[in-house]
Amino acid sequence: MNNPLEELSSHLDKDMRSVNAEIIKRMDSPVSLIPQLASYLIAAGGKRIRPLLTLACTSIYNGNMQRAHMLATAVEFIHTATLLHDDVVDESKKRRGQAAANLVFGTQSSILVGDFLFSRAFQLMTDDGSLDILRVLSGTSAIIAQGEVMQLTTAGNIDTTIEKYIEVIEAKTATLFSAACEVGSIIAGADTQANTAMAKFGMNIGIAFQIADDALDYNADQEKLGKTIGDDFREGKMTAPVILALEKANNEERNFWTRTIKQKEQTNNDLATAQSILERHNANEKALKLAETYGNKARQALAEAPDHKLRALLDSLITYAIHRQS
Amino acid sequence: MNNPLEELSSHLDKDMRSVNAEIIKRMDSPVSLIPQLASYLIAAGGKRIRPLLTLACTSIYNGNMQRAHMLATAVEFIHTATLLHDDVVDESKKRRGQAAANLVFGTQSSILVGDFLFSRAFQLMTDDGSLDILRVLSGTSAIIAQGEVMQLTTAGNIDTTIEKYIEVIEAKTATLFSAACEVGSIIAGADTQANTAMAKFGMNIGIAFQIADDALDYNADQEKLGKTIGDDFREGKMTAPVILALEKANNEERNFWTRTIKQKEQTNNDLATAQSILERHNANEKALKLAETYGNKARQALAEAPDHKLRALLDSLITYAIHRQS
Repeated sequence: MNNPLEELSSHLDKDMRSVNAEIIKRMDSPVSLIPQLASYLIAAGGKRIRPLLTLACTSIYNGNMQRAHMLATAVEFIHTATLLHDDVVDESKKRRGQAAANLVFGTQSSILVGDFLFSRAFQLMTDDGSLDILRVLSGTSAIIAQGEVMQLTTAGNIDTTIEKYIEVIEAKTATLFSAACEVGSIIAGADTQANTAMAKFGMNIGIAFQIADDALDYNADQEKLGKTIGDDFREGKMTAPVILALEKANNEERNFWTRTIKQKEQTNNDLATAQSILERHNANEKALKLAETYGNKARQALAEAPDHKLRALLDSLITYAIHRQS
Repeated sequence: MNNPLEELSSHLDKDMRSVNAEIIKRMDSPVSLIPQLASYLIAAGGKRIRPLLTLACTSIYNGNMQRAHMLATAVEFIHTATLLHDDVVDESKKRRGQAAANLVFGTQSSILVGDFLFSRAFQLMTDDGSLDILRVLSGTSAIIAQGEVMQLTTAGNIDTTIEKYIEVIEAKTATLFSAACEVGSIIAGADTQANTAMAKFGMNIGIAFQIADDALDYNADQEKLGKTIGDDFREGKMTAPVILALEKANNEERNFWTRTIKQKEQTNNDLATAQSILERHNANEKALKLAETYGNKARQALAEAPDHKLRALLDSLITYAIHRQS
């Protein structure tokens, strides 16, 4: 099987070129540090999964692809702004296989260029002129920020439930996936039922994607991942693998999580210990099983869309989102 | 003479109560840290000069005051988001007479709550539904971020010209004043000429306001100011008083600015020395004279508005913006 993300990208290649051109055009500014920093992050690649979702959903419902190019750019800018701010908040060291922007350009520039891209996203939406889309994406932006704050408040709390965790990732990640899809069908003037189905597809693939991301943070090949492994552990984030391992923890393990996650007292070998505890409880496999349940919901919602080559590719993308290696 | 800002506030008292109610309603969130942090900053007061401008300009042109309440809230949220991010960028210690939010709640929360308020501002505009207003305020937000980045790149550069300085403060401060005013006349459905006049009034009072702010950073009574005096000096910011003093600097003074601003090597007595150099060259007075020239442009633009009690109050506000003590 080919990589479904690459297949999707190649199927939408012409449109993605237009999106890339729009990205470069819209991140331009007379203040040269802005395009420098933005292109540093954007040129490094990334999966571009969100703009692809917007393009695919627009195309499935026969929408205007020129509008899709602009709005996919807006979606990607919101994502990029969030990444820049996240990396400052998390003091990240690596992103997309290179030093994180906050380390290269400073945290100050990362904050302000994030603000710039966020503003540009709203300029793009205004240029497009759909109040429905503005409503979806301004609401999404507020929910992302809420999710990030919620994540701050759950960090270090080893009593965080899996339900609370899902609430956090729904807000901080899946809502933008949901919006990316719904924007596509809105562009196409689809009916409310279709918009709801696309939003539901996006939300559930987004949750599955983030659970898989959180599993990768403990078991990925660091070279392939493009960011530092164990970041979540060092930041004391309560993600699916840890929560699932805690459910089965003996006293000694519970003490380990208390010291490393709650009290954040970590030594060099602790990440390896954490990994072996997760393995002992099959916590990563259990996390991916949980991701599968959301994958299935995504698949169900997607089935409401009209039959289309891209619908089949999005279906494969669900499996990819869960079982990817990076 | 009464304080014109207080007079304006008292004249618009009923509307400002509605704005305050809207602020409280719209900063609410199930994530309790968000309203906690937002209300910490908002309850501390501040001049509320931007929402007052929106209310006044709407009222002068006989616009719908309910829309003005919502949009004045959006303007204040953009301002508050900017303050939160600025205080992280500048590592500020004090704001509005109390410890800066980044010190009380942490820089992470300040960044994310800033993002939240920014998103909420766009939700408010979308609820209002005017694409013209969305265009003005999304453009303004992008320009503010550009101005802040520009300021980062001029900091420490003792060759910064007064023209470059004006460009920075126009972007980072005056554009939002301009938008606050223009939004008012747009709400009222005024013609392009009126909107342009209000934008011009706002831009010029904003520039005057910021020049005065930068003078206060060297010569205010710290108690009255509500923030730490000398912040700009410590951050190596190139503001009007320093630029004007540098124009007349002898070798010894130039060496002083090179060491303190360019090389940022400062000792305890340096702020006092800076203040005495500024005094020697009447740099603060010269800065306020420069502010007056922008005040006059603001006055000229304001004269295009219909005769109105609030127009007279805005006229007095120009003088206040320049000669206030805090």
